[in-house]
Amino acid sequence: MSCTFVPVSATSDFSLQNLPFGIFSTATSPARVGVAIGTYVLDLSALSRHGVFSHISGLQAETVFSQSTLNSYMALGKPVWSAVRAALQDFLSNDSHPARTVAVSDVAVEQSSVTMHLPAKIGDYTDFYASREHATNVGVMFRGKDNALMPNWTHLPVGYHGRASSVVVSGTPLRRPNGQRRPDATKPPVFGPSVRVDYELEMALLVGPGNELGEPLTMAQAGERIFGVVLMNDWSARDIQAWEYVPLGPFLGKNFGTTISPWVVTMEALEPFRVAQPAQDPEPLPYLRDSTNSGYDIQLKVDIKPSGSDEYYALTNSNLKYMYWSLKQQLTHHAINGCSMQPGDLLGTGTISGPTEDSFGSMLELSWSGKNDIKLGDSGLTRKFVEDNDEIRITGVCQGDGFRVGFGECVGQILPAKQLDF
Amino acid sequence: MSCTFVPVSATSDFSLQNLPFGIFSTATSPARVGVAIGTYVLDLSALSRHGVFSHISGLQAETVFSQSTLNSYMALGKPVWSAVRAALQDFLSNDSHPARTVAVSDVAVEQSSVTMHLPAKIGDYTDFYASREHATNVGVMFRGKDNALMPNWTHLPVGYHGRASSVVVSGTPLRRPNGQRRPDATKPPVFGPSVRVDYELEMALLVGPGNELGEPLTMAQAGERIFGVVLMNDWSARDIQAWEYVPLGPFLGKNFGTTISPWVVTMEALEPFRVAQPAQDPEPLPYLRDSTNSGYDIQLKVDIKPSGSDEYYALTNSNLKYMYWSLKQQLTHHAINGCSMQPGDLLGTGTISGPTEDSFGSMLELSWSGKNDIKLGDSGLTRKFVEDNDEIRITGVCQGDGFRVGFGECVGQILPAKQLDF
Repeated sequence: MSCTFVPVSATSDFSLQNLPFGIFSTATSPARVGVAIGTYVLDLSALSRHGVFSHISGLQAETVFSQSTLNSYMALGKPVWSAVRAALQDFLSNDSHPARTVAVSDVAVEQSSVTMHLPAKIGDYTDFYASREHATNVGVMFRGKDNALMPNWTHLPVGYHGRASSVVVSGTPLRRPNGQRRPDATKPPVFGPSVRVDYELEMALLVGPGNELGEPLTMAQAGERIFGVVLMNDWSARDIQAWEYVPLGPFLGKNFGTTISPWVVTMEALEPFRVAQPAQDPEPLPYLRDSTNSGYDIQLKVDIKPSGSDEYYALTNSNLKYMYWSLKQQLTHHAINGCSMQPGDLLGTGTISGPTEDSFGSMLELSWSGKNDIKLGDSGLTRKFVEDNDEIRITGVCQGDGFRVGFGECVGQILPAKQLDF
Repeated sequence: MSCTFVPVSATSDFSLQNLPFGIFSTATSPARVGVAIGTYVLDLSALSRHGVFSHISGLQAETVFSQSTLNSYMALGKPVWSAVRAALQDFLSNDSHPARTVAVSDVAVEQSSVTMHLPAKIGDYTDFYASREHATNVGVMFRGKDNALMPNWTHLPVGYHGRASSVVVSGTPLRRPNGQRRPDATKPPVFGPSVRVDYELEMALLVGPGNELGEPLTMAQAGERIFGVVLMNDWSARDIQAWEYVPLGPFLGKNFGTTISPWVVTMEALEPFRVAQPAQDPEPLPYLRDSTNSGYDIQLKVDIKPSGSDEYYALTNSNLKYMYWSLKQQLTHHAINGCSMQPGDLLGTGTISGPTEDSFGSMLELSWSGKNDIKLGDSGLTRKFVEDNDEIRITGVCQGDGFRVGFGECVGQILPAKQLDF
C-alpha cells in the first residue's frame, strides 16, 4: 500500500503509515485539524465535506475537524481513531476511491505555507522522571554514587505537575528567565537572568478519553486511552531549580517554557515499533505489571544551532526504548489514586538518557554540571549550557522497511532575558 | 449604606459590603453568574437585562454574566470590577434606583434552592507553602528542630504546581485514594487505601487579567490582578506523599481532590481588613519588597463532623494574617520568570497555621504525625487523621463594624476507598 494522492519520499517523516494529527492555519483560513502526508497537510475538514468519513459512526467529522484543537477528536476513543486512519489510508492509496475526483489543492496545502499551532488545549501537564540513566546521572551529581537513585524510584514512576500555560508549539522563541539563584552557598541568593539554561530531551503522550475523579485506570484501560505522542523539550533553568526545589519540587526553573512538536503521532502508527521495555527489578506492584511489549523504538536526536551560526551540531543521540517506566505505566500510576485525566492532557516522560555518554539528554549531564566543555562538532565552539540566541532542535524517527514514521521537529530558540529594573 | 432590597442580618456572611461572585444554577435554569447577598443569590444576567450595568463601558454584561464560569469577567480587570460593585451597591441600597421596580423573584433566588459550581475554569493550579508556622512544624517532624526551615524558605515563597482537574467545589464528596506507601522502611512498599488522609486549611486567590509568557509581573501589577479569594481544603494523603515526594514534590498524595468554596470574595471587599503581614527577616530581594499592608485579617475555622455524628467539633482556629508571604508576593514570584498567568488560575496559600496549637491547620500537625489523639470536643471521640465518611468544614470571616464579609463554607466528605482487584 502506498500513497498515490501526493508524492511521499522514502525518507519523509510523514508516510502513509504515519498520518500524524495537528492543528494548522493558513494566511487566509482559520486553525483546524490536519494530517501530515509527505510535504502536505491534508485538511480534514475539507475531506469531511467530500464524504471521506461519512461512514464512521460516532464522528461528527465536519464539526470535530473544523475545531482549533484536537481535544474533541481525542475524546472519541480508539474505535473512531482506527476508522479514521483506515479511511485516510484508503483515500490516499486507492485511486478509485469515490472522493479521489478532488484536486490536491482542494483538500491539501503544502506544509511550507501553513502555521502550526498547539495540537490541544492542555488542561493539565505532568512530567515524569522515567529514564533510569538520567535519574542516576543527576543523582550521582547531586548526592554521590551510593545514593544516586532514591528508594522510591524503582517502585513507581516518579512525576510532578508542570505548568500547562507555559507549553508552546515548536518554533516559539522563549526568553531566558530571570529568577533567584544562589551561586555561592555562603552568601545570600541573587536575582537576575539564569546562567544555566538547559534543554531536556523528552517525549510526551497526549491523553484521549479521560476518567472521572475517583475512578482509577488499570494498565489495560490506560493502553486504550493514549491518543499519541509528541517530541518535547522541557527547558530547565538549573540554577533557579537547584535553589528552589527543596522540598516541593521544580517550579520557576521549569515553567518559563516547554516546547512540543506540532504533529501528534498516533499509537496505531507506532504499533510496529513496539519493543520490550528494560527489565524491571524489583518487579512492580501488581497495578503496574505488564506482560506486553510497552517500549517503543524511536530514535531521538538533539542538535544545536549556536548563536550566529547557520549549522546544526549534534548534542544527543538517544532512544525512547531506554525508558524504564513505560507510557502505559506512567498514565496508570497517575490515575491510580482516582486523579481525573482529561482529553488533551500532556504527560512528559522526563529526560530520555541512554547508557552511553552521547545519549545523555541534557547539557547538565553532557557537561557534568558545567564541569566539562561540550564540543560542537569540529567548529571549535563549545557549550556548558544554552547561550542567548542558541537554537535547540529535537527530531525523532521510527525506521520501517522502506518508510519512516517520524515526528518532524521540536525547535526552540532562547532569547536574551528581559531587562528588569530591580 | 445598607441593603434595602432583601433582608441581610448583621451575622450574615454576605453583607452589602461583601458581594462575592459565584456560578449558580437552579433546577430549571443553567449555570450563570450570581452574587450572594443575605440568603439570596442575585442573578447578574437578569440584572443586566434590567440595565443595572448598562452605563459601564468595557462590559458586555448580558454576555459575560450569562456564562457558566467567571473567567471572562475576571479578565476584565479592576476598573470594571469596581464599577460593577458600585452599581450593585447602588441597586441594593437605593430605593429610588430606576431598576428597583423589579420584584425580588425576578432577579434573585434563595441560596437554599440553587446548586453552586466551580467559580472558574481553572487553567493552572499552584500551591504555596507560605505559613512559617506550618513549614516549621512539618520541618521539625521530618528533619528535626535544627533543620526545620530549608535555607530557601525565608528568601522566596516556596510553591509547586498542583492538578487543576482535581479541584472540586464545596460539597463534592471525594474518595479515599489508593496508592503506594511504605509503612515499614525495612520492607517493600505496599498498595492500598491511604490510612493518613488529612485536610489542609488554606485560602486561594483567583487571577484576573493575565500576563503573556515571557512578561514578568511587578508587585504593583500583581496587586491589581488578583480578582478575589476563596477557602480551600488541599486534601492530602500523608503516607502516599511521604513515599513519593522525593525529589520532585507532592503528586498522587494531593491530586485525588482539592475543595474550594463557591463564593469568590473580591479584593475590594477585603480592603478594610488589610493588616501588616509578619515582619520579613531577611529583607526580601527587591522584586518581592512591599511597603503596603498586604496581610488580611480573616478568621479561619475548621470543624469536623465525624462519621455517624450530626455535630461539628472544632479542629483549627487560625487566621490568614499569620501568613509570612503575602498573596501579592506569591503571584509576583510566580510570574517573575515570565510564567504566564491566565484569568481563573488558582494560587493556594499552603496550610495556614498560627503560633498556638489550636491554630495548626492540618491533622498532621494537630496529632503531631499521628503520635497524639485529637479530641473532638467532649464527645469522647478522637482522630489522628480523617476517617471514612468524616466531613471537614472550613469557614472564614472578616468581622466589620456591624457587618461581616464572610466566605460561606468549604465542605467535603471522604468516602471509603474504591475496592480494587490487585
